[in-house]
Amino acid sequence: MSSYNAPIRDMQFVMRELADLEAVAALPGCEDASPDVVDAILEEAGKFANGVLAPLNRAGDTIGAKWDNGVVTTVPGWKDAYTQFAEAGWTALACEPEFGGQGLPKLVSTAVMEMWKSANMAFSLCPMLTTGAIEAISLCGTDAQKADYLPKMVSGEWTGTMNLTEPQAGSDLAAVRSRAVPQGDGTYKIFGQKIFITYGEHDMTDNIIHLVLARLPDAPEGVKGISLFVVPKFLLNADGTPGERNDVHCVSIEHKLGIHGSPTAVLAFGDNGGAIGTLVGEANRGLEYMFVMMNEARFAVGMEGLALSERAYQQALAYAKDRVQGTEAGVRGGPKVSILHHADVRRLLMNMKSTTEAMRALAYVVGAATDMAHYHADEAVRTRSQAFVDLMIPVVKGWCTENANLITSDGVQVHGGMGFIEETGAAQHYRDARITAIYEGTTAIQANDLIGRKIAREGGLTAKALVAEMRKVEAQLAEASGDEFAAIRKSLSAGVTAVEEAVEYIVATYGKDIKAASVGSVPFLKLLGIVAGGWQMARAALVSARRLAEGSGDASFYKTKITTARFYADHVLSQAPGLAYTVVNGAAGALDLTEDQF
Amino acid sequence: MSSYNAPIRDMQFVMRELADLEAVAALPGCEDASPDVVDAILEEAGKFANGVLAPLNRAGDTIGAKWDNGVVTTVPGWKDAYTQFAEAGWTALACEPEFGGQGLPKLVSTAVMEMWKSANMAFSLCPMLTTGAIEAISLCGTDAQKADYLPKMVSGEWTGTMNLTEPQAGSDLAAVRSRAVPQGDGTYKIFGQKIFITYGEHDMTDNIIHLVLARLPDAPEGVKGISLFVVPKFLLNADGTPGERNDVHCVSIEHKLGIHGSPTAVLAFGDNGGAIGTLVGEANRGLEYMFVMMNEARFAVGMEGLALSERAYQQALAYAKDRVQGTEAGVRGGPKVSILHHADVRRLLMNMKSTTEAMRALAYVVGAATDMAHYHADEAVRTRSQAFVDLMIPVVKGWCTENANLITSDGVQVHGGMGFIEETGAAQHYRDARITAIYEGTTAIQANDLIGRKIAREGGLTAKALVAEMRKVEAQLAEASGDEFAAIRKSLSAGVTAVEEAVEYIVATYGKDIKAASVGSVPFLKLLGIVAGGWQMARAALVSARRLAEGSGDASFYKTKITTARFYADHVLSQAPGLAYTVVNGAAGALDLTEDQF
Repeated sequence: MSSYNAPIRDMQFVMRELADLEAVAALPGCEDASPDVVDAILEEAGKFANGVLAPLNRAGDTIGAKWDNGVVTTVPGWKDAYTQFAEAGWTALACEPEFGGQGLPKLVSTAVMEMWKSANMAFSLCPMLTTGAIEAISLCGTDAQKADYLPKMVSGEWTGTMNLTEPQAGSDLAAVRSRAVPQGDGTYKIFGQKIFITYGEHDMTDNIIHLVLARLPDAPEGVKGISLFVVPKFLLNADGTPGERNDVHCVSIEHKLGIHGSPTAVLAFGDNGGAIGTLVGEANRGLEYMFVMMNEARFAVGMEGLALSERAYQQALAYAKDRVQGTEAGVRGGPKVSILHHADVRRLLMNMKSTTEAMRALAYVVGAATDMAHYHADEAVRTRSQAFVDLMIPVVKGWCTENANLITSDGVQVHGGMGFIEETGAAQHYRDARITAIYEGTTAIQANDLIGRKIAREGGLTAKALVAEMRKVEAQLAEASGDEFAAIRKSLSAGVTAVEEAVEYIVATYGKDIKAASVGSVPFLKLLGIVAGGWQMARAALVSARRLAEGSGDASFYKTKITTARFYADHVLSQAPGLAYTVVNGAAGALDLTEDQF
Repeated sequence: MSSYNAPIRDMQFVMRELADLEAVAALPGCEDASPDVVDAILEEAGKFANGVLAPLNRAGDTIGAKWDNGVVTTVPGWKDAYTQFAEAGWTALACEPEFGGQGLPKLVSTAVMEMWKSANMAFSLCPMLTTGAIEAISLCGTDAQKADYLPKMVSGEWTGTMNLTEPQAGSDLAAVRSRAVPQGDGTYKIFGQKIFITYGEHDMTDNIIHLVLARLPDAPEGVKGISLFVVPKFLLNADGTPGERNDVHCVSIEHKLGIHGSPTAVLAFGDNGGAIGTLVGEANRGLEYMFVMMNEARFAVGMEGLALSERAYQQALAYAKDRVQGTEAGVRGGPKVSILHHADVRRLLMNMKSTTEAMRALAYVVGAATDMAHYHADEAVRTRSQAFVDLMIPVVKGWCTENANLITSDGVQVHGGMGFIEETGAAQHYRDARITAIYEGTTAIQANDLIGRKIAREGGLTAKALVAEMRKVEAQLAEASGDEFAAIRKSLSAGVTAVEEAVEYIVATYGKDIKAASVGSVPFLKLLGIVAGGWQMARAALVSARRLAEGSGDASFYKTKITTARFYADHVLSQAPGLAYTVVNGAAGALDLTEDQF
């Protein structure tokens, strides 16, 4: 059995030293995020994550959500945990104050979100999807819709879902076929089947508010003919309480590789006359609205990659310290030692630790930039920050989730044979992680977005600005002394050059041969993630050297940061040039075969 | 649901063009392996794998082996399939003719083994473990033991197991505590608990022959005090038939991440007075005997990595050809296409295909070298071949199984959201694969063996001879024309240089700082696998160019080989220098932290 301890010390380090919490707290509207308040929030969230959510994670896996004749029952203890979660105000943390939210900056909610996802990822999906639905209604809903739904969703009394996918419309939402028929009274009847609906049905709240993509009768074909509707499980009475059951029913839930605690529903709309819904925003703009919210959702899934990596690391480390096996290398007949003494176990753990820290640093920095883009008084700063966020969202999503597959696998490996036994719990993280590189857009979808909309469309402008930032850190490394900094600088320098070469190739190729550029898109996404993570690790090492020189704080902590950054440079960042080679040279081999040659 | 079609055409190509089947068939003792006979064997094995074993694979996963009060029941249909398997003579294929085996060369049994493992890995473990037990008794058993057990094990009437692991003795067999007490009549009473015993109990045969590591009363501590015993589930009557039940009982079976069809038993020896066994070979030499057999077992597990990769590739390819989603890149509103048209799906499939082919080529070449080492008339050839086999066994085991984790993950990814749904079947391969990099020695154990016993101990002699062979192929590439060969040569050249640098480092470092060398051991193992695989892919491309120039055979097949080798060079082989960097520079970062700094 594995426990979880929220890594508050490391979160604070990243928030303060790398993501500039002070600057975020100085933004207009973010004044509440004083260091004391933030520390208290992290402390309380950590207690809830460690004490309430984490202990329910295993039952989520072994028992799972159950479907019976349309009714979904969540895992014993989950409903109670959810009630506590809502009552403690956690659902409202990042929401706008207008409807009861606490309006805390993204940087703070990011750290808190990491804890929920580490402690119990399957549970965390429920509030995460609700946040997306809240955002959709806030952004495009009518005043009536806002008044009807938002207060109860922000308070956590009701949850929300996003209904996009249909059997024939997965990554390609243009193929959505669900229909919405206007009733002449301002409402619509919705017909169709939606699949992969996270928490599409459950027993934790009195109502579920579905946001649904469907086509109006006169809608154009393709992406420009899809509208967004809000369809509650229970229609509202005049006093706003849940009333008549709406015609949306859970036909089944999926039997999945992981996140068993999270019910993944097949929802049938309108099998008995039509599900009543109302239009959100303007007709035919549904997909556009979805794209606006997608940044948020993709970032959150990227956080799942980070969070599961942290959880897997904690579990593997505890095992490695506890498990005694063999003697020190080269000491036959010597005393038995914990496996943490063995070189490859260390390598695995350092890989897990350093990559997890790199992901955290990058994700939090992007979280802080989101606050800058949202709240900063200077429009130029807002624009610049938003461009950085837009560039990095697919990287946070794609890179952190691909990493999670590898790092949770490392976690299994550290356990040896025990890792393959389900009771150990390491395998659960490995299984749970596997969805993160798929949902909210596969890594390929992220990578397409990255090289197309985020790089080629603007001639690589923002990417080049990022490269310039990284070069500044490289220059600072040159002034730091010691082997560690020489090693970090060497790999970072080669890594940034690799990014530059790859960006040049993408900008030059995308317009004239989109397929050739696309072959390199996922390798490029990984490359950019690795190097951006290395940039943040280098910053962490530089800050740590400064603190050591000042003699302030915990010297061991700062020395660990420098060593960890060095490991990352030698083992992870050093793989960057190979990826750039593939980006630049990999197209012909991937594209030359005809279909029948496969 | 996924089907399997044994890739006979590709197997034949590798056997004939890369592994020199003709030379193997010319070896004394291998004359039966004529091209016609081999083709017939592959044909028949393919039918059995495709038609009998593959259809039982999914029930193996969903139903799994069941334990009830000491009795293990295999999956419905498996007992019957096993009976057919034995009756068709498949258990005897690679065994020595003296006890009823067919004595076919390793190269041939390797291809056949790949089929069993692709079709139904969990099933294949039963004959695989039996083969190991047969080998142990053949190698070290008394004439009586051979006569008692071998004919019925070779015929498949009885199966065998290997009992090494105990709760405190996983990778470290020196810690084995099971006891063997001599009874004065030539028999021993065995006491102790063994875990992770594959097919330690099942209902497919009338008897199970356990090979058990245990300590004699006067045995020295550590590795030099472990003896090997044969302990049948049923003691034999005077006529050789199974008689009285022996005191070995299955306490439970494990609940595992994958290979659910294969019962992994906890076996209690001697809880009711002592399990009767006889000594195999000399006292205190048990571990040594195990090491002799380990090459065989490790090779076989490496084949599992290859086999599951092939199976996952077949399934992903079928899905990619069938699933229609989106339009051609850059063609909004164009006709919908199969996802095989999308660049990243192609990249994933080409990665799966090319890496799988590289593994097959390398494994079969090692299989053929095993035959050379065993049968060749010239002692110098035997010695040279054995050295190559010894060097490459940990690579085949470690590299193919680590690859299998990645390639079965690619297989899930190609399926998108459906990959996460268990009914699709892609996730089973991902789960099944995860044990292969752990059992029969984790990748770290393989890598230790590789850099220590196989490289440092002899100053890198065999590794350098391998480098020289690779350089010859590099030189041949320089004489071939076309972009593909220039690309392949570029990556192979850099890859071989990377291997050279890493070998130099290991040879120079191992003796003076074993931990520093060991940090790089797994990256080095992967490096050597990637480059050795690239060497074989280059050979395949050169042969194909020759066949094309001759105008012989299927031109499309040979063109595909060249393109696939090129993809491998640009996407896989190109990562070699980054790994060498880590081998040479990665020690300090991995070793510097103290235990409490983690």
